[in-house]
Amino acid sequence: MSISPRWSRRNLLAGTASTIAGATLARVAQAQTAPAPAQPRALPPYVAWKDPSQVIVHTATTIETKRSAFGTSVITPTDRLYIRNNLPAPDVSIVANRDAWEVAIEGVRQPRTLSVADLKSLGLETTAAVLQCSGNGRGYFADKPSGTKWTVGAAGCVIWSGVPVRSVVAALGGLADGARFMTGTGGETLPAGIDPKSVMVERSVPLRAMGDALLAWEMNGEPLPHAHGGPLRLVVPGYSGVNNIKYVKRVAFGATETDAAIQKTGYRMSPPGAKGDPSQQAVWEMDVKSWINGPTSEGGPVKAGLVQIHGVAMGATRALRRIDVSLDGGQTWHEARFVGPDLGRFAWRQFVLPVVLQPGQYMLASRAQDAQFNWQVEHSPANGGGYLNSGWRSHALPVTVA
Amino acid sequence: MSISPRWSRRNLLAGTASTIAGATLARVAQAQTAPAPAQPRALPPYVAWKDPSQVIVHTATTIETKRSAFGTSVITPTDRLYIRNNLPAPDVSIVANRDAWEVAIEGVRQPRTLSVADLKSLGLETTAAVLQCSGNGRGYFADKPSGTKWTVGAAGCVIWSGVPVRSVVAALGGLADGARFMTGTGGETLPAGIDPKSVMVERSVPLRAMGDALLAWEMNGEPLPHAHGGPLRLVVPGYSGVNNIKYVKRVAFGATETDAAIQKTGYRMSPPGAKGDPSQQAVWEMDVKSWINGPTSEGGPVKAGLVQIHGVAMGATRALRRIDVSLDGGQTWHEARFVGPDLGRFAWRQFVLPVVLQPGQYMLASRAQDAQFNWQVEHSPANGGGYLNSGWRSHALPVTVA
Repeated sequence: MSISPRWSRRNLLAGTASTIAGATLARVAQAQTAPAPAQPRALPPYVAWKDPSQVIVHTATTIETKRSAFGTSVITPTDRLYIRNNLPAPDVSIVANRDAWEVAIEGVRQPRTLSVADLKSLGLETTAAVLQCSGNGRGYFADKPSGTKWTVGAAGCVIWSGVPVRSVVAALGGLADGARFMTGTGGETLPAGIDPKSVMVERSVPLRAMGDALLAWEMNGEPLPHAHGGPLRLVVPGYSGVNNIKYVKRVAFGATETDAAIQKTGYRMSPPGAKGDPSQQAVWEMDVKSWINGPTSEGGPVKAGLVQIHGVAMGATRALRRIDVSLDGGQTWHEARFVGPDLGRFAWRQFVLPVVLQPGQYMLASRAQDAQFNWQVEHSPANGGGYLNSGWRSHALPVTVA
Repeated sequence: MSISPRWSRRNLLAGTASTIAGATLARVAQAQTAPAPAQPRALPPYVAWKDPSQVIVHTATTIETKRSAFGTSVITPTDRLYIRNNLPAPDVSIVANRDAWEVAIEGVRQPRTLSVADLKSLGLETTAAVLQCSGNGRGYFADKPSGTKWTVGAAGCVIWSGVPVRSVVAALGGLADGARFMTGTGGETLPAGIDPKSVMVERSVPLRAMGDALLAWEMNGEPLPHAHGGPLRLVVPGYSGVNNIKYVKRVAFGATETDAAIQKTGYRMSPPGAKGDPSQQAVWEMDVKSWINGPTSEGGPVKAGLVQIHGVAMGATRALRRIDVSLDGGQTWHEARFVGPDLGRFAWRQFVLPVVLQPGQYMLASRAQDAQFNWQVEHSPANGGGYLNSGWRSHALPVTVA
């Protein structure tokens, strides 16, 4: 498995964090063994245009951005952005005539099927938002839940352009009575001979998500790539990846959540080892989270002296208030500085802490605080699916300074 | 020439603008003749990775973004960003080991040559900024000055990451006495047998530009492409493209401007037909400017009904205060709305005006106002080099609604 080096490092990290003593620049005692890089897998043809040197190919439908590949420019380049598909993508012919793609809008006073060309006439909004797989960080859960062992790279910050869903609803006479959920249905081709509800990508989010949601045809300034849901994606800022429906062909407002398996039993905050059921919290809004990406995250030792420690922090649905960095695995914290443009509450922000480091071992950690004074947690609760891991301790980064 | 269709359209535009009468939704009387597209030129090998469908190749060193290719997501994708080189780029081997590239810092108390690795330890800043060729819009000047006939596409909004120049200066003991200019020298290989001063890319900007300047190694989240100045570029936000030195190998602070021809006589606001000389204003800060990119800019007619008119507006060195749109070539104006994230005063912003259009001919224009109440001008002054054209009238866009 190409993820094994990271997974090994995470275990190593857990083993060393408790050994750090009090000094501000405490050094981790044990040497960090750099695991040999695993053999990289080739990119599958539908994303052959991604940069193979900047991603980790777990499988053809699960591709992670390397921790070293996020850069410091806020936006995640499309050719480095992660991929997570629940079903194989539909045929690429669906982007041959993007403006002709149709989406049915239901649960409004005047239900209609609209083309992308129609949508483009109805409104325009541009929103920068973190797109993050519900399972990002799963590889850091100590109980090793099943599923792709993502570390930090099933996430990116991208800029979406499209029409606000609320504008579409307004143009169709407003919501029908009783709407409590917004349900999006993906345009994937379903395998034959199987109950569609058991495999289809159809997700419901609470109606409160509608105000920020877009029907988006553009990402990072280019027509939305097929691999990322083009021609049209339902973007629900602040909600984890699975709620952002690719190739969306239907948006329905109604009183209940869909009974598709991916909603009913999938993506639930179930107890470890237990299956999901509708009584459990759905995986919807993401949590306040941050992690460090440099001065090194996968490379060799850092040169002693002045160093710029940097990373990304997200408030998920809220603006950020503060970011702290620790050099000693959380024994002591230093307030760091946000740098670069603030792209709004759904985006992430870059942060930096300049510090003079002596030779030794360090455990770099970060914890973010949102505008409502919620701190990033030290440990996210273990759950059956390994979802929404934002614990700062498991995301810490061991660094050797020489 | 691949630019001839645009040039023709511009002439057509000038011919029709005066015919528009007073009504809010006045229609242009004459039919707009759509010129046949010119044969596209192929991308030169060093930028073979650009998207050939989204750019206009004037020559191997002058490549323009199509007006229809800007999208509505603020950032200009790197594979659509314009290219303008004064000399052929140095060999691509200079990016084989990016961290080893060196830049000499002179005119400080402790002059030193620093590697990119050194610079990365000294500081980190991320700035979104419009990069615009000094001659962008030259194709719209009525007196047809010589040089590439850029329309709107020798510009883009990108995100730079690097170290603030002021941090480098501080680390080297501060400025030496008497500094009034910051001079950057490019790393191009100069042709043999010619006075280097006559061809070298070496530009001076006033010291006030230092506060915002970066030595940048990253653009749009990826290591700065060689074609855009990698491994290291001197970025001077708010200043036109030529002042942003590619492959920068020297930054010097001193009492005088460089006597390289590109500064002494080149890029001066000379009278039409006259040569440049040092007594004339240098081409430095850009002006407040805007233009419309859609709902169509190079395509067929727009469907009657509700339409989203959109474009980009820049304050150059100041935040934007307001943006107006006209449907009748400037007879009447409507305040439009900025949309999407505000990336700071050096970036551009997207704007949109929703309007119901009846069938007919329209002349879409926009005019921006900066935070100091400076309006975008109607006509920029003609000048020998055809520089800094920001006149709203010549940038107007004829559109047919059917």
